[in-house]
Amino acid sequence: MAHIARDAKALTARIRRIRGQLGSLEEALAGDADCVAVLQQIAAVRGAVNGLMAKVLEDHLREHFAPVEGTDADEMEQLVGIIGSYLK
Amino acid sequence: MAHIARDAKALTARIRRIRGQLGSLEEALAGDADCVAVLQQIAAVRGAVNGLMAKVLEDHLREHFAPVEGTDADEMEQLVGIIGSYLK
Amino acid sequence: MAHIARDAKALTARIRRIRGQLGSLEEALAGDADCVAVLQQIAAVRGAVNGLMAKVLEDHLREHFAPVEGTDADEMEQLVGIIGSYLK
Amino acid sequence: MAHIARDAKALTARIRRIRGQLGSLEEALAGDADCVAVLQQIAAVRGAVNGLMAKVLEDHLREHFAPVEGTDADEMEQLVGIIGSYLK
Repeated sequence: MAHIARDAKALTARIRRIRGQLGSLEEALAGDADCVAVLQQIAAVRGAVNGLMAKVLEDHLREHFAPVEGTDADEMEQLVGIIGSYLK
Repeated sequence: MAHIARDAKALTARIRRIRGQLGSLEEALAGDADCVAVLQQIAAVRGAVNGLMAKVLEDHLREHFAPVEGTDADEMEQLVGIIGSYLK
Repeated sequence: MAHIARDAKALTARIRRIRGQLGSLEEALAGDADCVAVLQQIAAVRGAVNGLMAKVLEDHLREHFAPVEGTDADEMEQLVGIIGSYLK
Repeated sequence: MAHIARDAKALTARIRRIRGQLGSLEEALAGDADCVAVLQQIAAVRGAVNGLMAKVLEDHLREHFAPVEGTDADEMEQLVGIIGSYLK
């Protein structure tokens, strides 16, 4: 079973949390929203989306790719670490 | 009227589009989602959230801040341009 | 004296450290560089450049811009905080 | 020959250009630097460093990793495309 199918429940829960954050943002806009609060809420949504991407991308790397002959096995985790630093 | 209130309708439409993207992502996960398609959908959500942040942040700068005495008036647009390059 | 002139010495020291990092990267490439080490060195340079940008941009905001009438004085620090989160 | 060794000359040229950009930045700071010009120069250095990272990371992926059995061959290029969009 691919990582996406295996993690579907956990990933869906993450997505629903992000949809909930966006729902609160909509409510804030419908009310007398404070600009800074709106900016902070959007930044929080961005952080959650980056976290979602990091999770799926890292699992994708581990499951669908492997170091070729002559490449150390631990290079996968080093690669995941470097890419992860860009997704924060 | 603050920019947030003035743009509430347009911002809400953006947020609903992002919620729709997330809804499609949930459906993909409920079905036989292809990993690369999921990664590309998440990247599209991230781009949309960055666009939303850029819009609100730029309007926030223009409306709530002004160059102090001795600072050229066009420095606001230059500042907005530099910050915008980070939000893509 | 503008923040750039006032901080010139400290900013120059930061820039020299980054040039030093790039010098070590050149030496690594001239030798038998390990790919992962090179990737980690580039990531470190990127972090240092982002730190440099954050420092100059935040000082630039504080010195050349001010909240307009009706905008709370603390909104500058909130704005700097939000922008800073994007420059990490 | 690993991609790093093979591309050492081209990568070194990129690094020297970035060092040159940083040298100009130092000169600007030693003179009567304009803040916005300094900010734009730093943003340009950041873009060049991101380009350097994208180049090395993409070659690293292609050379040291391969799709495992059951994963389409074209998934490497799709993966490189998604990761590349984060390094801009």
